[in-house]
Amino acid sequence: MSNFIKNANWRYATKKFDTNKKVSNEDLETLKEAIQLSVSSYGLQPYKVIFVDNPELRAKIQPAAWGQSQIVDASQLVVFANITNFGEEQIDAYINNVVTTRGLSAEDLKGYADFMKSKITTLSEENRNTWTSKQTYIALTNLLNAAAELKIDVTPMEGFDPALVNEILGLEKMGLNASLLATIGYRHDEDATQNYAKVRKSKEELFINL
Amino acid sequence: MSNFIKNANWRYATKKFDTNKKVSNEDLETLKEAIQLSVSSYGLQPYKVIFVDNPELRAKIQPAAWGQSQIVDASQLVVFANITNFGEEQIDAYINNVVTTRGLSAEDLKGYADFMKSKITTLSEENRNTWTSKQTYIALTNLLNAAAELKIDVTPMEGFDPALVNEILGLEKMGLNASLLATIGYRHDEDATQNYAKVRKSKEELFINL
Repeated sequence: MSNFIKNANWRYATKKFDTNKKVSNEDLETLKEAIQLSVSSYGLQPYKVIFVDNPELRAKIQPAAWGQSQIVDASQLVVFANITNFGEEQIDAYINNVVTTRGLSAEDLKGYADFMKSKITTLSEENRNTWTSKQTYIALTNLLNAAAELKIDVTPMEGFDPALVNEILGLEKMGLNASLLATIGYRHDEDATQNYAKVRKSKEELFINL
Repeated sequence: MSNFIKNANWRYATKKFDTNKKVSNEDLETLKEAIQLSVSSYGLQPYKVIFVDNPELRAKIQPAAWGQSQIVDASQLVVFANITNFGEEQIDAYINNVVTTRGLSAEDLKGYADFMKSKITTLSEENRNTWTSKQTYIALTNLLNAAAELKIDVTPMEGFDPALVNEILGLEKMGLNASLLATIGYRHDEDATQNYAKVRKSKEELFINL
């Protein structure tokens, strides 16, 4: 059986974390590398990912996330924050990165840069923010899948108040918006939900073959 | 090194597929299982995933996707289509699935069902569609990661005209909307881009530690 399937079956949305176990620095680096390798629209990676260890900050965030205990009990809280008002500045930075990484000249890439700019800067601010937010779902999923291989539990969360999280972490003035949360760590022995059967649509329901 | 990182480094957005190689039925089943196991908001899986093998359909879709050759050259085209106007009917179907899978009574889950309904049906139609579309990014990423383990290439695509793809595949009358495309198959030896260095933001640029 593929390791991917085995790991995907192992994981579950952990409800109760073991407060005594921390993710090692080595594993944190692997998880960051997995996030860093995420695909994204044009490769632009239009987000930042914030690893919150600080207990006071997590205690402040907990009420903004339906009071979920995982926020404070997990080893770390991860905040996926999409870049708001993404535009020419970020596209130029990406092009500079391509130039450096691949030893090309900015001149060679001008046409491609202009193409991206024409596609992106003409979107409304709302549509641009939706588009950058969508990319964070890919990064979250890389975190989930990489963590499962390391037997690290992750609980992804959409249920929180972005405005409050932005305020607590000062994201707005950094041009960021909290798009997704995830808590990482190790399941508590007493979390009964780890034994629940996974609920998924049948293949007949989920897929169409043409 | 983690297999996840190894596989993520192996993959790339394939520009040219080998038209002579098809993904086996066994591997297609594994990829479908990987998609099926994707996490989603409340576990609702608010989308369908369409595997298009039919060459005529793919030839029709190609011009709606910037003429990209992968649409017709790859082994299959995969269309991730979010459910539009997601509402009570789909939530009730999910609850029925939980009841069956976990041997619970619908009565036990009424409070949870009502909670989901209050959160979801109060969203505007546009916000509901954005929310269901976002979930397809998770399913796409499971496909990418599971395929990389099997050394199957995937090119994810946001660059297409959803209205045209909806029309060609008759999605609108099924209550669906084309959210993402992906082509799957095997890279052509002559695809020079497979040797390009991966361009990613540095960890210093991408991550914040608090």
